[in-house]
Amino acid sequence: MRIVVLAGGIGGARFLRGLKLAAPDADITVIGNTGDDIHLFGLKVCPDLDTVMYTLGGGINEEQGWGRTDETFKVKEELAVYGVGPEWFGLGDRDFATHIVRTQMLAAGFPLSAVTEALCERWQPGVRLLPMSDDRVETHVAVDVDGERKAVHFQEYWVRLRASVDAQAVVPVGAEQAKPAPGVLEAIAEADVILFPPSNPVVSVGTILAVPGIREAIAEAGVPVVGLSPIVGDAPVRGMADKVLAAVGVESTAAAVAEHYGSGLLDGWLVDTVDKGVVERIEAAGIRCRAVPLMMTDPEVGTAAAEMARVALALAEEVRGA
Amino acid sequence: MRIVVLAGGIGGARFLRGLKLAAPDADITVIGNTGDDIHLFGLKVCPDLDTVMYTLGGGINEEQGWGRTDETFKVKEELAVYGVGPEWFGLGDRDFATHIVRTQMLAAGFPLSAVTEALCERWQPGVRLLPMSDDRVETHVAVDVDGERKAVHFQEYWVRLRASVDAQAVVPVGAEQAKPAPGVLEAIAEADVILFPPSNPVVSVGTILAVPGIREAIAEAGVPVVGLSPIVGDAPVRGMADKVLAAVGVESTAAAVAEHYGSGLLDGWLVDTVDKGVVERIEAAGIRCRAVPLMMTDPEVGTAAAEMARVALALAEEVRGA
Repeated sequence: MRIVVLAGGIGGARFLRGLKLAAPDADITVIGNTGDDIHLFGLKVCPDLDTVMYTLGGGINEEQGWGRTDETFKVKEELAVYGVGPEWFGLGDRDFATHIVRTQMLAAGFPLSAVTEALCERWQPGVRLLPMSDDRVETHVAVDVDGERKAVHFQEYWVRLRASVDAQAVVPVGAEQAKPAPGVLEAIAEADVILFPPSNPVVSVGTILAVPGIREAIAEAGVPVVGLSPIVGDAPVRGMADKVLAAVGVESTAAAVAEHYGSGLLDGWLVDTVDKGVVERIEAAGIRCRAVPLMMTDPEVGTAAAEMARVALALAEEVRGA
Repeated sequence: MRIVVLAGGIGGARFLRGLKLAAPDADITVIGNTGDDIHLFGLKVCPDLDTVMYTLGGGINEEQGWGRTDETFKVKEELAVYGVGPEWFGLGDRDFATHIVRTQMLAAGFPLSAVTEALCERWQPGVRLLPMSDDRVETHVAVDVDGERKAVHFQEYWVRLRASVDAQAVVPVGAEQAKPAPGVLEAIAEADVILFPPSNPVVSVGTILAVPGIREAIAEAGVPVVGLSPIVGDAPVRGMADKVLAAVGVESTAAAVAEHYGSGLLDGWLVDTVDKGVVERIEAAGIRCRAVPLMMTDPEVGTAAAEMARVALALAEEVRGA
């Protein structure tokens, strides 16, 4: 079975760990969001790709969900003494090595997809990890500060400002001109199932869908497309989905997110058991829906996520059989 | 008193520490060798400039003479796991930060001299540290390996090969086209004394002198030029001066090095007490010479170097008064 997953960072990575347990023989291609990518200290940092790579490769800091385990911060400390920032982005020494390798390869002319493949040679994530595009796409968030509107990089909105101010608009700068990375459209065309993990529907999955050709390819793939709600009980499980959903005029509810994707794209949708009241509304919108536990905070790594993946795949089969 | 010093790495840096003790009120400009510079992992590394900066700024690893104190090597470890080398160059985590800042500033368009000034803002070395040139100069060493001649970067010759093979030739690639960095010729023209510390006469001081205009400016400055022999008892105090001197056809002796610089450039020369037998020969070549202790391996940091600097400055005054 060939499965394509559109993934952001932590939510996508944890779901993928469960999916690998649930479907150990599946051929999984991950299309990773690169709209969160940022240049820091002259280095190219790809937070979502790295979170997937580190999580599936066994190098992730489990507690925080991003960055490397057994990490130290000497480089960052020194940069701060030089007065070179930003200080609000937590790059560890081990993590720096990844960005140094990536930047060096990009400077040598390799596209991001080839660089990602090379990095995965080490991590052996057990999935094929593709960036959504080799072209630069950078999600910016419009915010009002002291009565003035300004655009900040998504990482600045999320990490520095901690999404403490409202997002007035979310713009994936460069997306319109971007082309899907090599292999992306082919993977979608050859997929048996396409999954949207509980990643941010605006700045993660939404950014991937904003690359011309990807949304269309999914809609026309003719295979079940099943998503999992990142909103549980009217609040994001983690992150700032509520803020960026508001910016695009979508309620922060499991039902509204399903309707935002729409029945033209989505065939099935999983909501958490606390949201079981909205199953009918979603089904009325033409999307098959089930209410199951969607929290991935189990002590045994991947167990809850694996069960979620099993239910998602079962729902996909149900869609296929209908 | 305005003093100009042409410095390489460890020997130059340690002498400078002594000079600052010997002449605390002097206005010292250091013209640093950049022929050892190398690009590693996509980052610009300037070993000699950094050794001077770290030594005078209190951040040097005293035992090894280069690199940072209290250093860790996580980034390098990770790069090795990625299979990215070279592994033979010991870049520590704290040191990486310097190269990251430098590379980022260079990429932003600042010349090396401005970058060095910015880095020194932090280190406050108590001297004005100028790279010999903002242009790229890279010292290559021709070696015969398995019967074939090939050119290797100086760092590869010294750090990887540990100078275990003979140097057939030493070429400061790019030197002929290089221009002295802003301030270099001005500092020489305004100097009261010019000193050559016990740095390598070929790959350190020699490379600086290979930048068109610098040798001429020193010869024409009309002020005492005094050097200290890096060769003690027919062997270099440290490093591979013997190997690179052989490549340029110069004997590895205190006298031969003085004659290599020549009386057209050099007015005074200090040799170690073990070499007092050559004083007459050097004076016969038109260079005032004194034999004094030249080992800088004293337990009290800088004390021996300070005494060497005092004697060098005294010899300069003797030259001036002659």
